[in-house]
Amino acid sequence: MTFRSQLKIRFGDIDRAGIVYYPRFMHYFHVALEEFFINELNIEYHEVIERFRIGLPTVHLESDFSKPFSYGDDIEVEVLVQNVGNSSITFGYRVFKQGDTEPRIVGHNVTVCLDMDTFKKIEIPDWLRQRLEKCQ
Amino acid sequence: MTFRSQLKIRFGDIDRAGIVYYPRFMHYFHVALEEFFINELNIEYHEVIERFRIGLPTVHLESDFSKPFSYGDDIEVEVLVQNVGNSSITFGYRVFKQGDTEPRIVGHNVTVCLDMDTFKKIEIPDWLRQRLEKCQ
Amino acid sequence: MTFRSQLKIRFGDIDRAGIVYYPRFMHYFHVALEEFFINELNIEYHEVIERFRIGLPTVHLESDFSKPFSYGDDIEVEVLVQNVGNSSITFGYRVFKQGDTEPRIVGHNVTVCLDMDTFKKIEIPDWLRQRLEKCQ
Amino acid sequence: MTFRSQLKIRFGDIDRAGIVYYPRFMHYFHVALEEFFINELNIEYHEVIERFRIGLPTVHLESDFSKPFSYGDDIEVEVLVQNVGNSSITFGYRVFKQGDTEPRIVGHNVTVCLDMDTFKKIEIPDWLRQRLEKCQ
Repeated sequence: MTFRSQLKIRFGDIDRAGIVYYPRFMHYFHVALEEFFINELNIEYHEVIERFRIGLPTVHLESDFSKPFSYGDDIEVEVLVQNVGNSSITFGYRVFKQGDTEPRIVGHNVTVCLDMDTFKKIEIPDWLRQRLEKCQ
Repeated sequence: MTFRSQLKIRFGDIDRAGIVYYPRFMHYFHVALEEFFINELNIEYHEVIERFRIGLPTVHLESDFSKPFSYGDDIEVEVLVQNVGNSSITFGYRVFKQGDTEPRIVGHNVTVCLDMDTFKKIEIPDWLRQRLEKCQ
Repeated sequence: MTFRSQLKIRFGDIDRAGIVYYPRFMHYFHVALEEFFINELNIEYHEVIERFRIGLPTVHLESDFSKPFSYGDDIEVEVLVQNVGNSSITFGYRVFKQGDTEPRIVGHNVTVCLDMDTFKKIEIPDWLRQRLEKCQ
Repeated sequence: MTFRSQLKIRFGDIDRAGIVYYPRFMHYFHVALEEFFINELNIEYHEVIERFRIGLPTVHLESDFSKPFSYGDDIEVEVLVQNVGNSSITFGYRVFKQGDTEPRIVGHNVTVCLDMDTFKKIEIPDWLRQRLEKCQ
């Protein structure tokens, strides 16, 4: 069962064209990812950073937007673990208007595991790899 | 000569990892695009929407991030016209730390020309096509 | 019983000083207000704008911040109807860290009822006034 | 001569009511403050934080909004030093549409000088006090 985060489009998320300002979707991706961490990986994202000193900066991003969202739309952001490499993790995202079967946005980002103190690339620690692989 | 917009990383653009929150780069892309419109295409972006009733929603986005940016970095966002189709326009972006010769971010987005009143796809009007093609 | 909206501080809400960027609190106020509308006034905020063509721009804002919030904090934003005038409504906000009895932020904003088509000030319509007064 | 920062309302700064989302003005205040630091106090705001380890969180905020701003408006944000206390600094802000003589927004925030390492209140260091007092 794939994880979905329930979000609401907010009043301030709209641009001058009356639809969601597209950079907001990357923010929604991240909010959904934070929810994925606590709900599916059983760890708060802030603990990953603060306690385990691991950062996951995005090195690649891709997204297709087939239909706009408006203010008032309730959305669901699906989060998928698409690939777990040595130090990279690819997360997939699909954004649905609630009730729809087809996503309006399909995207993914590749993140790299960093030691937050040295900002150097590290291997994904085992505790994180195991949790990620369970979600694949 | 390629257009570059000079921007500053702002205090509030930073995330908990101490680097620029990656969705902000999509905002920087858009700010640079707005500057590109007035400086290179000789039309304010808001006029495109309000006077000509044309919207340019993003249908595809891709970006590579090779090195993070920090608060205090001055940046230059290069905007390129990469493709002009029937109704789609592809804009390229390269983000440099000021003084660097290599970009830290390389991305592009495909936008589609919409009639803002019907939200239907339309052909790029001639006045816009001509200006875009001059910048290719 | 006062309405409280449960929110989470997000990864991107943090500033370079490592605490919540203070303009984000005004965004939290607004998100909580949107939740207050649907939960307590039984109308979605977007319907107020889109169906009833009423806007509620802020004309005055005041806020005291006694203690910062960090990434990972769960917060509760209390929304109060503090005053209902002829055309103005004052909403109060109190922001708590979950579990705390003392708020860290206390603020309010005065909004004015506008006809969205003319952008002129209007009297608060009865249907809205009655719902607001029930919450005082 | 009072310092003014030239800003442009951006495409994504607009809310569903078609005017600037009011929390964005607090962001504009901060951007103008950052420009004030480098232009009038001769120090980059990020150096205050990173080199001098001083933070200036807002403890009180007040603002009046008399007229909305729209996408396409060029604005000027005036920054004033209104008070320099032992450890608190009050900055005033006035936001003009370019060419106007009357501000549309008048606000101020009280900030408190913190040691970034202990997050304890400290006296304003002399080097900062002297620069601030020159601007009063």
